[in-house]
Amino acid sequence: MPADASSTPKRASRGQPPALRLRMRVVVGDTIAIGPGKVDLLEAIQAERSITAAAKSLGMSYRRAWLLVDELNRALKAPAVETAAGGSGGGGAALTPAGERVLALYREIEAKAQAACRDEIRQLLGTVAKPAP
Amino acid sequence: MPADASSTPKRASRGQPPALRLRMRVVVGDTIAIGPGKVDLLEAIQAERSITAAAKSLGMSYRRAWLLVDELNRALKAPAVETAAGGSGGGGAALTPAGERVLALYREIEAKAQAACRDEIRQLLGTVAKPAP
Repeated sequence: MPADASSTPKRASRGQPPALRLRMRVVVGDTIAIGPGKVDLLEAIQAERSITAAAKSLGMSYRRAWLLVDELNRALKAPAVETAAGGSGGGGAALTPAGERVLALYREIEAKAQAACRDEIRQLLGTVAKPAP
Repeated sequence: MPADASSTPKRASRGQPPALRLRMRVVVGDTIAIGPGKVDLLEAIQAERSITAAAKSLGMSYRRAWLLVDELNRALKAPAVETAAGGSGGGGAALTPAGERVLALYREIEAKAQAACRDEIRQLLGTVAKPAP
């Protein structure tokens, strides 16, 4: 499953059943410390072991990916991503234990929240009219 | 508590502890049928019994509130809001049983999801650095 499969529905709506999209953000005042974009990026860096490749896999510019990583590293008690200086194409990147922990907790909360509310979610989806096929 | 208390943090971030913000949307393809703005509006209409007053209480234009209500009514199997024709200032508005149901289910899922993930949320918030007071 691509890292952002649940984040950005891009297909036409015709005939698709209603679905619940759950987005979580950790906010500190009006600053977003952790959000779905940053977590998708952590997941892509974990898979690609490179910020360049992770950005590409998400259709994101390298500059934006780098800024998100920098923001996240500053927002956490310990950095989430460590990079190695490298030659052409840049060095590798990897999640630190703190980064692995943020990613795992975020995905666990998503899954557990959906599981805990399965009945109510089904009922809520049931109130929505089905689009013409 | 104002209807949008949890939606739009407006205060400065200094000294505020990290908090989890959970946003749910019911999507049909790339259309958002139910989302936090529409649910806040349902709650305000329930309290104010008027679209004009509800819009005002949320700092939203009447036009935008009316469009959101219209979109929501079309997206559901049964309309969420019914309006009465009226004189100056417009007639009243009220939630239908379908509107009450959408509002209650949405708030129940929010509360139940947070309760089910209390430990993991605490752990996730614990990874974030506290801002300077």
